[in-house]
Amino acid sequence: MNDLLIRVLKGLPVPRTPIWVMRQAGRYLPQYQAVRKNHNFLEMIYTPELAAEITIQPIDALGFDAAIIFSDILVVPQAMGMKLSFIEHKGPVFHTPLRDFRQLDRLAQTSATETLQPLMKAIRLVRQELAGRVPLIGFAGSPWTLAAYMIEGSGSKTFRYAKTAVHAQPEQLHRLLQRLTREIVSFLKQQIAAGVQVVQIFDSWAGQLSPEHFRQFSLPYLRTIIEELAAEDVPVILFARGAAHSLEHLAATGAHALGIDWQTDLTDARKQIDGRAAFQGNLDPTALYAPVPQLKQHVRQVLQKAGPAPRHIFNLGHGILPDTPVDHVRALVELIHKLSPGYYPKPAAAQRSAQPMVLES
Amino acid sequence: MNDLLIRVLKGLPVPRTPIWVMRQAGRYLPQYQAVRKNHNFLEMIYTPELAAEITIQPIDALGFDAAIIFSDILVVPQAMGMKLSFIEHKGPVFHTPLRDFRQLDRLAQTSATETLQPLMKAIRLVRQELAGRVPLIGFAGSPWTLAAYMIEGSGSKTFRYAKTAVHAQPEQLHRLLQRLTREIVSFLKQQIAAGVQVVQIFDSWAGQLSPEHFRQFSLPYLRTIIEELAAEDVPVILFARGAAHSLEHLAATGAHALGIDWQTDLTDARKQIDGRAAFQGNLDPTALYAPVPQLKQHVRQVLQKAGPAPRHIFNLGHGILPDTPVDHVRALVELIHKLSPGYYPKPAAAQRSAQPMVLES
Repeated sequence: MNDLLIRVLKGLPVPRTPIWVMRQAGRYLPQYQAVRKNHNFLEMIYTPELAAEITIQPIDALGFDAAIIFSDILVVPQAMGMKLSFIEHKGPVFHTPLRDFRQLDRLAQTSATETLQPLMKAIRLVRQELAGRVPLIGFAGSPWTLAAYMIEGSGSKTFRYAKTAVHAQPEQLHRLLQRLTREIVSFLKQQIAAGVQVVQIFDSWAGQLSPEHFRQFSLPYLRTIIEELAAEDVPVILFARGAAHSLEHLAATGAHALGIDWQTDLTDARKQIDGRAAFQGNLDPTALYAPVPQLKQHVRQVLQKAGPAPRHIFNLGHGILPDTPVDHVRALVELIHKLSPGYYPKPAAAQRSAQPMVLES
Repeated sequence: MNDLLIRVLKGLPVPRTPIWVMRQAGRYLPQYQAVRKNHNFLEMIYTPELAAEITIQPIDALGFDAAIIFSDILVVPQAMGMKLSFIEHKGPVFHTPLRDFRQLDRLAQTSATETLQPLMKAIRLVRQELAGRVPLIGFAGSPWTLAAYMIEGSGSKTFRYAKTAVHAQPEQLHRLLQRLTREIVSFLKQQIAAGVQVVQIFDSWAGQLSPEHFRQFSLPYLRTIIEELAAEDVPVILFARGAAHSLEHLAATGAHALGIDWQTDLTDARKQIDGRAAFQGNLDPTALYAPVPQLKQHVRQVLQKAGPAPRHIFNLGHGILPDTPVDHVRALVELIHKLSPGYYPKPAAAQRSAQPMVLES
């Protein structure tokens, strides 16, 4: 079994850097498009056989070192009873945004519904079909990110309503965040019981909060989730996008790895994390638009910034873009497999001459 | 004359914090909407009487401590011959994006055209009409930000084409950036000759570059512009949005003040700037959605983070949002005028008892 990802997360030595990319089971992949042609997004998530197939496509096609279950962070509010659609070219939309916090009491407990069971079945199917080839990652959105979507009703440039809650109704917002924290913990525990071997928490809208507000409205809940999962022996990756201002706080949450967005200097991030967690990232997704020779330079730069013998999981610093050339993704995976061993000490002297330490570009 | 802004920029003592807000001459203001109803955006910019009227509206209506000329950063590429339209709900669009760098040689030198003369006339009109009431700020986009718009053809979430140039055609992109630097210096010198007393450079898309690329493709050109303006005795404010990772570099450019976006902690920013420049910002624009009592708390927090006797220009950490309640903006200006004196030492003992130092919230 390829257990590189889990070894890095547990702080064990590895011979090279594992790689997966956010949204690797997604639109840039022709195999995904072929399924998508006949099914809508929510059908694909809630049909275990389809979700399992899509999850495994990038492993078969491109050789990533981990699979991530095909799903969406908004299944949790959906399971709480908020009607959700995915609109072409617009993204997710809740039919009735949560603008009056009294609605909160009318929302269901996800554990009391069957809604999330197809996702658990998909996880079991993937584990069977992968048969130990690579580890499977489960995931959830953070309380703040889910709250922002629920209040706003969709993505937004300014999050007018969610931000007004931050500024004008902090107590009510904290009530929602506490409630979401419980649901997310329960959802992640279900995924772990179904077989995911790693979980990632996406705080995709962390950057919509000022540093002060991030520490008030997001960080404490992230910490609670990680504490609640501590007994599970499943490592947690925490990706708070746009929250580089709080890396030291994030490193103190107990997360096993921190996702680093591409706007953050990886050397700076590594210094701030200071060995308290592994780190994941952070190639600029648009680097994949470049021809392979230039892409190679950008990849080398990330590996160098990760430092020698790093606790590093290679990833992009944001989800892969839908119009990314799939050949470049294939080249990326090959580059990491080929170049990254040069950044680790070799276990045996015999290998040393075959694969010299390469630290210069 | 209210010269608070200029005094702060020159490092002279002031009795309170000056305030202006980015896009203060804009859509949130009913007086602006009244003009906008009968004219399109470009007409308003290129009709000196209208531009002057709109520039002065927020001074008359709300009492800001500085005016900023009503214009747009894209007038420079437009004057170079790139056809520009402003599309409702979409923003600026260049009819023919600069996708082939050979087109660059066909673009005009703005100094050889008359296109920008109406803007200079508007500046002269504003100076006359203000008659010294408050200083007038001129501005330009940064080379990187203009290049990103020119290559992309419009705003963008991912700047696919501009970023591909960064990754795959760095030499060509540098050629464009050098050319834009010359045009911007010339444009700013013309504005200074026409009467602006301060200039601000907007690097609005700085955050679309990784820290590494920001230092390669934006920072050197910002430094050149500031050096070229050094002989003009007009202070320069530099606002590189999303580039908090490079504040120490920005503080070394020679800018008289740095704009700080709202995602950055003002105390951290102040420490990194370390007295080398004044700083401007950084209230979260969505704080203006909150009722006035909560707004007051947020304002106090910014003033406290600015520290005692700061070289601080109060502003938002991004442009004011179009749906901001104008009454809240009025309250903001009054709050700054009323609260900020408490953060400065008083020149005479007589005033001390009337206005005690207030450093607690």
